[in-house]
Amino acid sequence: MAKAPVLTPRADDFPRWYQDLINKAELADNGPVRGTMVIRPYGYGLWERMQSEMDARIKDAGVSNAYFPLFIPQSYLTREAEHVEGFAPELAVVTHGGGKELEEPVVVRPTSETIINEYFSKWVQSYRDLPLLINQWANVVRWELRPRVFLRTTEFLWQEGHTAHATYEDARDFAAHIHRNVYDEFMENVLAMDTVPGRKTARERFAGALNTLTLEAMMGDGKALQVATSHELGQNFAKAFHTQYLSKDSTQEYVWQTSWGSTTRMIGALVMMHGDDNGLRVPPRLAATQVVVVVIKEDEAALDAARKLAARLKEAGVRVQVDDRTDTPFGRRAVDWELKGVPLRVEIGPRDVAAGTAVLARRIAGGKEPVALDALPGVVPGILEEDQALLLRESRERRESRTADVTSVDEAVEAAATGWGRIPWAALGDAGEAKLAEQGVTVRCLVAEDGTVPESEDAPGTVALVARAY
Amino acid sequence: MAKAPVLTPRADDFPRWYQDLINKAELADNGPVRGTMVIRPYGYGLWERMQSEMDARIKDAGVSNAYFPLFIPQSYLTREAEHVEGFAPELAVVTHGGGKELEEPVVVRPTSETIINEYFSKWVQSYRDLPLLINQWANVVRWELRPRVFLRTTEFLWQEGHTAHATYEDARDFAAHIHRNVYDEFMENVLAMDTVPGRKTARERFAGALNTLTLEAMMGDGKALQVATSHELGQNFAKAFHTQYLSKDSTQEYVWQTSWGSTTRMIGALVMMHGDDNGLRVPPRLAATQVVVVVIKEDEAALDAARKLAARLKEAGVRVQVDDRTDTPFGRRAVDWELKGVPLRVEIGPRDVAAGTAVLARRIAGGKEPVALDALPGVVPGILEEDQALLLRESRERRESRTADVTSVDEAVEAAATGWGRIPWAALGDAGEAKLAEQGVTVRCLVAEDGTVPESEDAPGTVALVARAY
Repeated sequence: MAKAPVLTPRADDFPRWYQDLINKAELADNGPVRGTMVIRPYGYGLWERMQSEMDARIKDAGVSNAYFPLFIPQSYLTREAEHVEGFAPELAVVTHGGGKELEEPVVVRPTSETIINEYFSKWVQSYRDLPLLINQWANVVRWELRPRVFLRTTEFLWQEGHTAHATYEDARDFAAHIHRNVYDEFMENVLAMDTVPGRKTARERFAGALNTLTLEAMMGDGKALQVATSHELGQNFAKAFHTQYLSKDSTQEYVWQTSWGSTTRMIGALVMMHGDDNGLRVPPRLAATQVVVVVIKEDEAALDAARKLAARLKEAGVRVQVDDRTDTPFGRRAVDWELKGVPLRVEIGPRDVAAGTAVLARRIAGGKEPVALDALPGVVPGILEEDQALLLRESRERRESRTADVTSVDEAVEAAATGWGRIPWAALGDAGEAKLAEQGVTVRCLVAEDGTVPESEDAPGTVALVARAY
Repeated sequence: MAKAPVLTPRADDFPRWYQDLINKAELADNGPVRGTMVIRPYGYGLWERMQSEMDARIKDAGVSNAYFPLFIPQSYLTREAEHVEGFAPELAVVTHGGGKELEEPVVVRPTSETIINEYFSKWVQSYRDLPLLINQWANVVRWELRPRVFLRTTEFLWQEGHTAHATYEDARDFAAHIHRNVYDEFMENVLAMDTVPGRKTARERFAGALNTLTLEAMMGDGKALQVATSHELGQNFAKAFHTQYLSKDSTQEYVWQTSWGSTTRMIGALVMMHGDDNGLRVPPRLAATQVVVVVIKEDEAALDAARKLAARLKEAGVRVQVDDRTDTPFGRRAVDWELKGVPLRVEIGPRDVAAGTAVLARRIAGGKEPVALDALPGVVPGILEEDQALLLRESRERRESRTADVTSVDEAVEAAATGWGRIPWAALGDAGEAKLAEQGVTVRCLVAEDGTVPESEDAPGTVALVARAY
């Protein structure tokens, strides 16, 4: 049975496919103020699962959550010169409050380094108060000229970690720990996303940081997306905000700091990474609903069998939902579950019940086949893990097959037309990076030959990954 | 051993005691912009537990979470006349974004009825789409002239539920369901807070609502605090935003709506409800840490015993933490745990280990006594439940003993000096309410004689609870 395509096919127009999917899977709508978004329940459900998994990892790293104000006095931002230069063009400014013009305008936080440092300065007195490890889940605003839902929005949701340490080494190691053991581990094991961990070039660094560590992911069209970053801030903010501690030797020292963030952009990454022409495919470990049991048409026996199956799947540790909306045609509901990317669909009708079977449709591996009802609770957990692994493998294979080793700027631009280029950093350098930028191609990150993160830009054997990026 | 008071005693100066406790228990700091607050990790931990318990109840009511933008076009607010009149004096207005003056200023959401209705109008087409049950966890801004941390802040955190229904009855019943089965149940069973459920008078209603249901709690000084509200919005916003559905009879009908919220004010309520002169007392079911095992001084055997005990308590389902900061004097740590109100403290030193005992200090019931180490995992869960019940009982007894039946405005004002007054609504009325207001006393809510919520202000036997309020 040939179906008319539900979405614009990816091969025809990838950006339009993305927008179609976001709309039809009911992930988000555009907000009324340009660049803002409404995250609909199904999209927000993905975010809640991301939050829950990420939050557990952040807490395991010894970090506590807190909450700092949305409004930052404009004067705070100007205290760190590079920081204000980086963010000034993107600020939203509140000039009126409570019916009056404010004496000092306040900015809506674009990130919270400045206001957090103001409080770290109060809370940190002695070396005993260090390390101070704080995270917040919050909304931030960066006025966006070329918005794209989830990927670049004027307001987005994120977690931002902020830490203060006694030594450079401790701060450096903590930034790296978050980068690899929280973010990279989460991307791989929850989102089933292959990412490349690396360091940013000076040009691409966070405004005010000494070093920015990044995870870069290849989207379905071969472009790159930065999915999370972890910054070594050095003592830049500490000096601007006088964040000092009394050392064991009774001297006043500036703290060393990190900050690190991951955002609702991850939802966009998920779509562009795992989506296909039929919709989203949600990795089973992320999915709020791993299995939907669909009652094909109104029938007491089928409904009863569906509920019993759901109860048994739940007992087996599976997150399951029953779709008994039999007043909506079955075909429409099936298309909708494909769009939403629920990993497994079990379809039950009267004939199935009579035969003691159901049809199992696999959204990730593909295919539909009848399975004995009684066998399902035993096999489903294993299938979900298989499909989780399959998504990760596909993601890795795509990146590997679409990354080309190149030796010149021209070749790098060519590679970036369909995927990524790998070029020795010594052969590219700042000048080559500037030339690439003229073509809309950027250095996504620097990596060591063995895949680790280089200690510095100058480390021998450092390779640049170059690509077009979202 | 007589101790200097850590906090200003409540009897001396209740507001100062409150501020002392907030600071010394490290719950929050004032933010740099007037009226804003920084919620510190220990305070935010209380909020996280509240969120988790409240969110589960909201989801059990069939509601899904979503997220709507922070920025609302100014024009949206003006569409519902009473709503804009109520909120206009409290708005924060963004006039500049991305370095330019905006064509239309945007307001920072004081609440989201308007922007949510804009989307409900798109999402609701037919009766099949109803009821539509949405909640969001978010920050909101209401410019506050007399701020007090947690109780009245320019920015606060909350959940706001918004629902649309096909009929008046369905909406009314849903608002009542949230009021009683979500909010009241949560206050009683998690926060151990006795509250009075009632309806607001026309004067005290939410701007734009037909009816506001409230929960009023008596604080430690006898004043009242509104801890959560649930509104019947009627069709006011539906008409302003054209939120209509196609009925089964193929007619276009306006939806009936509700909205309901609970906020970080609950943290302030917790302090003023359960705090004493030594600090906060956290109800065990809410506490992120129910038991802290304190190692008295550096000693391998004591540390080892503390860790083993913590592991066994954890197995028994208790949320436990080990305090092994033996470089800080024991006395200071004990005072700090009292301030923070962790329900149970188990103190272990070398002599205790030798005797196979530990000292159990009960923060809620009071008292300290030695207990066999091996017995603790068996008895702790029961003690925690006892202490939870004790807090609720104290809360109820305070309200009952400090509520006086009165018959005139003068008597009502007198009753409000130390507690609450109960007066027949028929004897008070709008005129009496206005007179009370001149004295700074308000009608907190209307209740029926049997303690239920009256169907209307005119219902025979309706009683007004009057008090001074935060």
